[in-house]
Amino acid sequence: MSDVRLAVLGAGAVGSSVADLAGEYGHDVVALADSSTAAVDPDGVDTTAALSQKADGAGLGSATPEDALATDYDVLVEATPTTLGDAQPGFGHLATALERDRHVVLANKGPVAERYADVRELEVDSAGTVLFEATVGGAIPILSTVSDLGASRVDAVRGVLNGTANFVLSRMAAESVAYEHVLAEAQDLGVAEADPSFDVEGTDAALKCVILANRLVEADAADVDDLRERTTSLEAAEVEGIRGLPADALELAAEDGRTVRLVGEATRDAVRVGPRLVPEHGTLAVSGTRNIVEIESTHAGQLAISGRGAGGDATASAVLSDVGRLS
Amino acid sequence: MSDVRLAVLGAGAVGSSVADLAGEYGHDVVALADSSTAAVDPDGVDTTAALSQKADGAGLGSATPEDALATDYDVLVEATPTTLGDAQPGFGHLATALERDRHVVLANKGPVAERYADVRELEVDSAGTVLFEATVGGAIPILSTVSDLGASRVDAVRGVLNGTANFVLSRMAAESVAYEHVLAEAQDLGVAEADPSFDVEGTDAALKCVILANRLVEADAADVDDLRERTTSLEAAEVEGIRGLPADALELAAEDGRTVRLVGEATRDAVRVGPRLVPEHGTLAVSGTRNIVEIESTHAGQLAISGRGAGGDATASAVLSDVGRLS
Repeated sequence: MSDVRLAVLGAGAVGSSVADLAGEYGHDVVALADSSTAAVDPDGVDTTAALSQKADGAGLGSATPEDALATDYDVLVEATPTTLGDAQPGFGHLATALERDRHVVLANKGPVAERYADVRELEVDSAGTVLFEATVGGAIPILSTVSDLGASRVDAVRGVLNGTANFVLSRMAAESVAYEHVLAEAQDLGVAEADPSFDVEGTDAALKCVILANRLVEADAADVDDLRERTTSLEAAEVEGIRGLPADALELAAEDGRTVRLVGEATRDAVRVGPRLVPEHGTLAVSGTRNIVEIESTHAGQLAISGRGAGGDATASAVLSDVGRLS
Repeated sequence: MSDVRLAVLGAGAVGSSVADLAGEYGHDVVALADSSTAAVDPDGVDTTAALSQKADGAGLGSATPEDALATDYDVLVEATPTTLGDAQPGFGHLATALERDRHVVLANKGPVAERYADVRELEVDSAGTVLFEATVGGAIPILSTVSDLGASRVDAVRGVLNGTANFVLSRMAAESVAYEHVLAEAQDLGVAEADPSFDVEGTDAALKCVILANRLVEADAADVDDLRERTTSLEAAEVEGIRGLPADALELAAEDGRTVRLVGEATRDAVRVGPRLVPEHGTLAVSGTRNIVEIESTHAGQLAISGRGAGGDATASAVLSDVGRLS
């Protein structure tokens, strides 16, 4: 499938990177939308011009987001912000695409973290397929590796899945400075948001682990109803963040050759996220904003994969790999 | 593609593991052959019985390897020993399958290390596809990750690709003992072969890097003739092994916070394998028989993947993932 026509919803870091890079992968962006404006062109949107116009405050183009959703595309890239609960408007965008028998690639975690069975139920009646590698671990090919191994032969996935929290913990350990100080530094560097709750309280890592747990239980589900009973949720997860972690916790760990990482774990039975003691030079002790996952599988043993867990281009790369897999 | 019919050529560690595990993946083994005997059954070979009969010295069955190759299958699994030069008989098995428009999954490195362009030339005229994840890094999904990223966007792949050499180096560093002593221990444990040349002289790692380099240059090749000009070979690789490495080289490295690993690197321009100084706690300093690769790509940045680089089940897992990808 070369010359795939993409409709990209969301023009933040990921959506705009997808729009920027699509041409290099041989694809055409026929629509690019943010929450209020859109550029639509069946012959290919001039994404550079549209994004530059948006940066100037004039919006992406004269079309509306509804026009973008209604245009003729092969794959819908859903890269609007993750929302919880009913996961709207992302879920609605996905539903519209599947009803039109189009493929969907998600960067937005909401639909698969909060409404996994609903997504699969719509997919059953559609010629379209939903892929969502970019929702877990940025550039790291976690879900495709789980699929290649066979999800039924994967017992657990664990790892460091939030770069902001990992940056804070790495810096606290390296510099022996207080949480608040490092957090302010991370905010100055753009590594942490003004409201860092989603990252430092473990919610972001937990959503990723919920998606992974749902992917594992799906392998054993007889049908969509059975899947609905087996899926888990953020509410059911045990989540503890790193907010206010005392600096002496890291010093005590270091005396023992260990350090602290915010580790998430997904199995068929549980999702747990929390600060854990790990060997200072062990696999899970990645530094800075890097992420890592360990995949435990029956015949392949343990695979560990590390890489960029966030960032526009890294996450766009995962989106575009999914687009490639749909060929 | 469920109920795929597999013809498995080769009944060593990998071939017999593929035969053992195929049923669990929903596939039927319709033929299983070693170099002189075979079991063939269109309704599915009793692989446990055939392998047990072989262990008793009575051969796999009453059929011949030619019968196995002539039976009706969907995917040929080529797991006979790697041979250099003309890569026979593996290459001939592959050619026969492609001429019959059948898929081929290689565990045998010979055809893609020594005759990459010949393999692709036959593939062009066939409805069959050739996959070879198991030829590089055992259970580690290296080639599929390169494909998902887009091989044209991968600049280099480097890593520790021989578990035997890595076991020897890890033990030498941990115990400060001489090369010959550790090698003898590795032979006792079955980690090194009686003739360890292939592993400790770097040939095995170099063949894997040649396959990777060929995969990278292929992304830029206009056609098979162009590919033939660009492919590289073991003869063109710079290869240095670890045989006779003095124990004090490891001690000197350790004083400086470093250690020695047999590192292979594949780019579009060169293949190099040799003992390298790496940070003692760095990504490449995996222990024991574990392998690791770092994949450098344009938009996804650096991905590192570690896992079991050898062993029957681990390598069979890569073979069966390839079979799954052919669906």
